Order: sequence, then structure tokens, then C-alpha cells
Amino acid sequence: MSVTTPRGFRSSGVAAGLKSTGRPDVAVVVNDGPDHHAAAVFTANRVAAAPVYWSRQVIADGRADAVVLNSGGANACTGAPGFQDTHATAEHAAEQLGVSATDILVCSTGLIGERLPMEQLLTGVRSAAETLADDGGQAAAEAIMTTDSVAKTASFTDGRYAIGGMAKGAGMLAPGLATMLAVLTTDAVLPAEDLDRYLREAVRTTFNRTDSDGCMSTNDTVILMSSGASGAVPEAGAFQEGLRSVCADLARQLIGDAEGAGHDIAIEVVHAASEEDAEEVGRAVARSNLFKTAIFGRDPNWGRVLSAVGTTQAAFEPDRLDVAINGVQICRGGGIGDPRDLVDLAAREVHVLIDLHAGQDAATIWTNDLTHDYVHENSAYSS
Amino acid sequence: MSVTTPRGFRSSGVAAGLKSTGRPDVAVVVNDGPDHHAAAVFTANRVAAAPVYWSRQVIADGRADAVVLNSGGANACTGAPGFQDTHATAEHAAEQLGVSATDILVCSTGLIGERLPMEQLLTGVRSAAETLADDGGQAAAEAIMTTDSVAKTASFTDGRYAIGGMAKGAGMLAPGLATMLAVLTTDAVLPAEDLDRYLREAVRTTFNRTDSDGCMSTNDTVILMSSGASGAVPEAGAFQEGLRSVCADLARQLIGDAEGAGHDIAIEVVHAASEEDAEEVGRAVARSNLFKTAIFGRDPNWGRVLSAVGTTQAAFEPDRLDVAINGVQICRGGGIGDPRDLVDLAAREVHVLIDLHAGQDAATIWTNDLTHDYVHENSAYSS
Repeated sequence: MSVTTPRGFRSSGVAAGLKSTGRPDVAVVVNDGPDHHAAAVFTANRVAAAPVYWSRQVIADGRADAVVLNSGGANACTGAPGFQDTHATAEHAAEQLGVSATDILVCSTGLIGERLPMEQLLTGVRSAAETLADDGGQAAAEAIMTTDSVAKTASFTDGRYAIGGMAKGAGMLAPGLATMLAVLTTDAVLPAEDLDRYLREAVRTTFNRTDSDGCMSTNDTVILMSSGASGAVPEAGAFQEGLRSVCADLARQLIGDAEGAGHDIAIEVVHAASEEDAEEVGRAVARSNLFKTAIFGRDPNWGRVLSAVGTTQAAFEPDRLDVAINGVQICRGGGIGDPRDLVDLAAREVHVLIDLHAGQDAATIWTNDLTHDYVHENSAYSS
Repeated sequence: MSVTTPRGFRSSGVAAGLKSTGRPDVAVVVNDGPDHHAAAVFTANRVAAAPVYWSRQVIADGRADAVVLNSGGANACTGAPGFQDTHATAEHAAEQLGVSATDILVCSTGLIGERLPMEQLLTGVRSAAETLADDGGQAAAEAIMTTDSVAKTASFTDGRYAIGGMAKGAGMLAPGLATMLAVLTTDAVLPAEDLDRYLREAVRTTFNRTDSDGCMSTNDTVILMSSGASGAVPEAGAFQEGLRSVCADLARQLIGDAEGAGHDIAIEVVHAASEEDAEEVGRAVARSNLFKTAIFGRDPNWGRVLSAVGTTQAAFEPDRLDVAINGVQICRGGGIGDPRDLVDLAAREVHVLIDLHAGQDAATIWTNDLTHDYVHENSAYSS
């Protein structure tokens, strides 16, 4: 269950010395075809990394033959020299793989504002190209980890075709229109336009509703490639749902491994006037440091939920708001509901249900609590 | 230097038992005139507390005779019974003071979602009314403290007239169109319309640019009352600047006493295309948990500054952004500048200078770092 689960893909992961720990830091995923269709979505951050600028150009024609990914350095805010580094990486990979550099997507992740050590990186790319394997998905997933504690992979199969994926991300986890680093593969027969449409829809309700710490990365990239190697033309609804399930699985793994988190929190907003309203309300609560510290302290402080809801433009009447935490209706009609001490917040997963009583739409935003370990991890180390 | 510095005002602070610590928790500020003009701005939070609903009605005619303030309970999300509690508080104070209840502003602060213990509160109001004094400003400032570690007062005098003020606030400190709890007084001769205009302008560039933790309160209120007791009609520019200086002084004290903070951070954005752009950029950085934890860790991580700037809609070119931290130009032209290790982050005050190179406007947002103590204070106690 990884990017090599679908037929037509090989991948690898090697240690090139970009990480001071000596752990794997360069991955390559190759699409051997027969199709080489691809789509991608990128960070909405206007301060985008060099590989994002490069990959946006590569994906424009809907074709990609391979993805080169490195951890140990984001290559963001590195100016023209940083862009040349990305270009050189693609050229080097192209040479090894016998394809065109303009069909090679590049992703980087790590510290912003440092140049990549190019000699080590290019040596790593060569080594990764030489070790590509049909079962290399796990190795690739390990090589893209930064502060992740586990490699994240997922897959879906419907018998005729498969969808596989990997993702990394444990901090700076709040995508805007795009999301964290993820590569998805399928052996279904699908043109690039369809891949693009399916990918945007799947990302919209999965990665884009993952908001661990409200901070949007400069490097977020999600790539979907199809090899057509199964020969199967999928039914649209089934493929969309399969892709969504793989994205949701990976997004859930990201939240479950977020830096320093003690709780994974699903903020479900129901009876909203629109899906946008539901998402805005969920995100406002997900970004409230006071709410997040309360959950860390196992305090079902619904006042902090309502004060966050009140900052939004969503349609609702303050005196009709209901809030339940882990099944206990602690706020009813905008006021005091059942006793706070009925709420059990010991388990890692927390469910906050906000009923706006304003319509029929809903959305769930996933976030984490704000803990001492989050502060420690993000103050003690540059990342 | 407090709300009783200007002539025509008396105040007091007493312990009514609303706080479990037994510390003072009820304050009254009375305007003895001859004028009783007043203006106020309130939280932009749509989930507003009962006293905010009440005080919005009181201020509508531009007259106020007194303010009753309590800590130990926000009276927010308490529904119709909570509003009746506020009403009863005003009626009780009116009786004691011999004025109309509809000329009494009420402010509450403390935990959201709990009813106030009315018997204790009303006894406290009576006791406060009986102990009003010409020099009661400090006692009032102490009685409105919640997690504040020090009482906050400020004043301005120009010889002919004075402006005094007090404020409280140490968490949930991110006003939208209004701000935290503050009472300002002046003995200048000024009609209510002028007070309103001066107050809104002063708040706009002071309290409204204070953003400790990105969380907007349900109870934020800033009140300005004029007694006219000096007989002096102020010059507009001088009064505006005097009022701004008192508000800025109080706002700076709020940041300096923010819950668990180790650093006070001024984020100065210059050469913006508009003041709104400058404010948006400053606020985006102020709300980045990754930036705030980095400053706690004394890490001049400018990549986290740029990644926050990149989430805004402000006019700028990514490759023209300059960032200096404490005088060291660590990011130049969107890329690597002077060495990070030249930056000294030992002092409590930190200055981040962001040059957008996009125009002539500027704004400074004040915020704090994100620390273990912030997490501790906000997870261990309900507030």
C-alpha cells in the first residue's frame, strides 16, 4: 500500500547526507507508463519555494515521467540560485532516467532559507535512480520524512485498478488551496484533465481540511500520476471516492503524527448555510490557541469554542448555537447545557460537534491540541 | 495616573467574593460631571457577552454616569438570564448612585459560560458605591484584573486638562474592531460625538494592533467619559495625540503582561501599499505559532516570517521582501541575507522589521512569543 501499489511505477529512497542524522532524504518515483499523465496542486502561499515554481511549469502540459523529492532542505527563499538548483536536480535526474527534464517534478521539504548541498543531492539522485524498484514505495515514503515519526502511505484497489499514495508533514500544516507534500499514483487509464479534476475535488475535502497549526507551508505539493498500466478505464464516481479515501487516509495520518500533539480533534460543523460557512467556522475553532490549549488540559471549555465561532462571517444566530464535545451537549442555545464534568477527554481522538442551525451543509476540520511538546519541538530546533 | 487623575471622577474597587482567591473583583467609576458625555467601542465578536449587549444600548445616547465592572465571571453565553443579571446590576448601582440605570455601563470579565453569583455581586456593587474616592483609580484598576499580574493605568496631562485610563487583559487578546476592557476618563470639555471620533481613531492604531494570541474576546469594551470639570476645551490634534498616547501606553502594558509570554514583539511593516496591507502582514506574522515558538527559542527563523507574509493578500513581490530582526538584515530580496547568528534575542523586547517595497504606508502590530508558560496557564486553568 504505497505509490508502487499500482502497476507501472517504481520508486526508491536513499540517504544522500542532506539530513544531519544520516537518515534517507532523497526519493524518486518513476512512471513507466504506458501513459504519463499527471496533475498537481500547489501551496497557495505567495512565498513559494523554488521547486514549486519549477513543478508548476512541468505540470502545465499534463505530463510527468517522474518526481524527485528531497527532505533536509526546503529550497525556499533562496532566490535565483535556488531555482537553478532545482533545475539542475531535474536535469540530473532526466539524464539518469533517459527522459526530458521538463517532465520531472521536483519537491523539497525542510528548513526555509538555506541552499541545498548540491553535490550530495545530485549524488543521491543518481543513487536513487539506480535503486528504483517495483516495491520501492515504502523506501520513498521514508525518505521524505522530516519531523514525521512514521512514514505515511495508503492505497485503494477496486480489483481492476489501484490508487497508491504517500505523504509527509508534521508541522506548518494548514494548506490553503493546496496542501502538504504527497504523491499519488494510479494504474487506471485517465487523461490529465480528469486527473486534475479528481485531484482538486479529493484535496478540497481532505488535505485542505487538515489544519494542525494554522501555518501554511511554502512547499506544499500534491501530485497525482496515472500510468494506465492496468488498462482499466474507471467509473468516475468510484475513482473519485477511491482517490478521496486515499487522501483522507493520508490526511488523517498527518494529523495523527503532528508535532507534539496529544489529541487529534475533529471539528464537525453541521446545519450550516453553506459548505464554505461550515469550513470557515471549523477552521476558526481549529486556529484558536485557547481552545487548543484547553483540549490539551482536558478542559471542555466550550466558551472558547463559541468565542472562536463568533469571529466568523458565517450565517448563525448566537442564541441558537449548540456545541457537543465527545457526545455531551455542553452548550445549548448559545448558553449553558449539560455539566462540563460529564465530558471525558482522556482519549487521543476528540469530537467537537457545532450545530449552527442555519442550513443543511456540513464540513469537518481536523486539528490538534496545543501542547508543551509542540512549543518544545518548534522552539528548540529550526525547521 | 489613573481614571481619577482627571477632575470630576471618583472610583473604587472591592472584593465581593466572585474570585475564589478573595482578591478585589468589583470596580465602579463615576462621572460627577458637570458633563456626562461618553463613547465606547465593543468587541467585533458576534458571540458577545450580556454586558456588551447592555452597554451598547446605554451608550447610544452619548451619556453615561458610571461604569460598573466585575472580574471573576464574563457573563458571556449565559442567555436571557445572564442579560437580566446585567440589568439587575445596573439597576442596583443606579439606586446606590441616585442616577438612571440606563446611564450605567456594565463590563464583565472572567470565565465564559457561567452565571454570576448575583447576591455577592450586588453586595459588592453597594460596597463599591459606598467607598468611591477621588483617588480610587488604582483600587479600580486592581479590581478588574483576571490573569493580569499587575494593574494597568496610564495618564496624560497638558496643564489645562487630563486624560486617565485603566485596562485589563492578559489572554484572549486580539481585538477586531474593538478591544479589551479599558476605561478612559477626561475632564476636558468635549461632546459625545467628538469623544466617539477621538476614541475610534485612538483605538485603531493602539489596542487594535495588539494581538497577543489571535483570540478575540466576547467582552472587549473600551469606554471614554468626559466630565468637563476642567472647563478646558482642548485643541483637536493635541487631544487626539494625548488620548492615543494613553491607549498606546495601556496597550503596551497589556502585551508586557500577556499570559506566559517571554518576549514582547513589535512587528513593524514598512513601505506597504496601504495601511491595511501593513496591518494584514503584521497580523499574519503575529498569528504564526511557528514564528512565535521560534522567538521563544531565540531562533531568528526568518523563513517562518516569510511563509506567514506569503499567506496575505497584501501588495508585494516575493523576491523584494526584506526582513530584519533586532537590526540584523537576515533576509534580503526574499532570500538569504546576513548570518542568523548575528541576531541577539536575549532581551524581552524584539523588533521585526518587514519591508514590502510596495508603497509608503506602515503599521506596527505588537504580539508575544508562544511559550511553555502560555500552554501551561491556558491548559491548567479554565479562564
